[in-house]
Amino acid sequence: MKYLIIYAHPEPTSLSGYLKDRGMAALQAAGHEVRVSDLYAMKWKAIADGDDFSERDAAAPLNYERASKEAYAQGTQASEVAEEQQKLLWADVVVLQFPIWWYGMPAILKGWVDRVYAYGFAYGLGVHGRSQWGRRFGEGLLEGKRAMVAMTVGGRMAHYGPRGVNGAMDDLLWPIHHGVLFYPGFTVLPPTVFYEVNRAAPEAVEEMARIYIDRLLTAPSTEPIAFRPQNGGDYDDVQVLKPQFDVPVGLSMHQRDPAFVSNTWLGVSGDYTPKHFAPTSRDK
Amino acid sequence: MKYLIIYAHPEPTSLSGYLKDRGMAALQAAGHEVRVSDLYAMKWKAIADGDDFSERDAAAPLNYERASKEAYAQGTQASEVAEEQQKLLWADVVVLQFPIWWYGMPAILKGWVDRVYAYGFAYGLGVHGRSQWGRRFGEGLLEGKRAMVAMTVGGRMAHYGPRGVNGAMDDLLWPIHHGVLFYPGFTVLPPTVFYEVNRAAPEAVEEMARIYIDRLLTAPSTEPIAFRPQNGGDYDDVQVLKPQFDVPVGLSMHQRDPAFVSNTWLGVSGDYTPKHFAPTSRDK
Repeated sequence: MKYLIIYAHPEPTSLSGYLKDRGMAALQAAGHEVRVSDLYAMKWKAIADGDDFSERDAAAPLNYERASKEAYAQGTQASEVAEEQQKLLWADVVVLQFPIWWYGMPAILKGWVDRVYAYGFAYGLGVHGRSQWGRRFGEGLLEGKRAMVAMTVGGRMAHYGPRGVNGAMDDLLWPIHHGVLFYPGFTVLPPTVFYEVNRAAPEAVEEMARIYIDRLLTAPSTEPIAFRPQNGGDYDDVQVLKPQFDVPVGLSMHQRDPAFVSNTWLGVSGDYTPKHFAPTSRDK
Repeated sequence: MKYLIIYAHPEPTSLSGYLKDRGMAALQAAGHEVRVSDLYAMKWKAIADGDDFSERDAAAPLNYERASKEAYAQGTQASEVAEEQQKLLWADVVVLQFPIWWYGMPAILKGWVDRVYAYGFAYGLGVHGRSQWGRRFGEGLLEGKRAMVAMTVGGRMAHYGPRGVNGAMDDLLWPIHHGVLFYPGFTVLPPTVFYEVNRAAPEAVEEMARIYIDRLLTAPSTEPIAFRPQNGGDYDDVQVLKPQFDVPVGLSMHQRDPAFVSNTWLGVSGDYTPKHFAPTSRDK
């Protein structure tokens, strides 16, 4: 298989860097092809602005969406943007690996999404308007490929549980899982999340590496999150979930099995008490 | 009152820029003090990295959190970071104004959060450990100040409704509302959200400006989202919502009134049919 890891951490000798290196080596040892976009090492330009479009009339007001559409269609995108798109088209499995910062992606990774997800590539496909809303949410250029978030978290597992103060991890990840990955067509796998990483003992780090490698190697066969496809009959013609689906409030309504909780939890504390839960049902 | 608008849009002549200018002018005309951090105009450095810490030993591995803590405590932060912190401490009302890009903030704004929210300023306050989890989620240095998201959206209102395919807007905004604003102590107001902005007729744009001005002027008295404070007795000692709260699944469980839907909806379509809903109860 072809694996692409989009990796965002400023320090190569960090736990994140170690996990990325171990994951890469294990995939290669198993005969897979691996490419890594190490955004910090690449000095990735995070800010989407007019400089992304060299052919654009710089004196005219910038409409980023329109400029993106034209540059993608005409082959005049920034070279690093076009290269990332080619990597995505090449890959079978895409992993976004990053530390959670303020409940989301580091800015450098968000800026990778903002710039690489061009109009015509990640959105703007298919017919839009009337009862059609394009090829998105399960359809699109990246359809058939698998994607997984791999994330390190400083906080404790319980704080991200179904009733934890930070919000349930599945819900926190919704904008990424559903908005960034499912939208352009990816099949979305349950994430790999490591908690309390700042106090992880060496044995805990090795356990994390083992689990990450396992998740990477099994990604082609892992049961995905069953997000409802937009054009699969579950939504009405203004893209509202049909009333016959008597599902609870909350984002889980957009899964075909709303009771399925995707996040695989690994809790590692200072005294090394790993607790590894497989994907499971909501406990309420 | 003192207003601070953190504004992120690459094009000054955009609808976003127009709304920002109109809002600023109206606040000033009403006698308020207004400061704007125009992140694109400031060429804000979005990427959090070792360059943020001039006094750091550049040869040592970077632990961003630790470096942030030391630089904040020792007064050696990057000057633009310290200035943004001072603006936040100065303000009574803080507005994050931005276009939604891939279901979240543009990278330049996320990078403002990543860098300005230093250890000791936005987190790491109070006692951590055992049953204490610090001053956060309703407590912290920014306690008593009010904050509001003001956002422009290309898509249609229905797609962001309680059962819309994109996810309910309140849930999409959770990482920002609860994670970025409530965490360091802000009182969080219902957002101002404008939909279908790409096809807005001139009359619709004026209606948006009128509504934005109204929301800005009334921000000091607007009923906030009643997020449960961390240390208010609703969470147990591992920060899990106590079992006696028989609330539905989903992020709304973390509001003291889970039925309250915060988002004020304004739908504006090509033929100008504005629909303005006040904050309301979930319709299931």
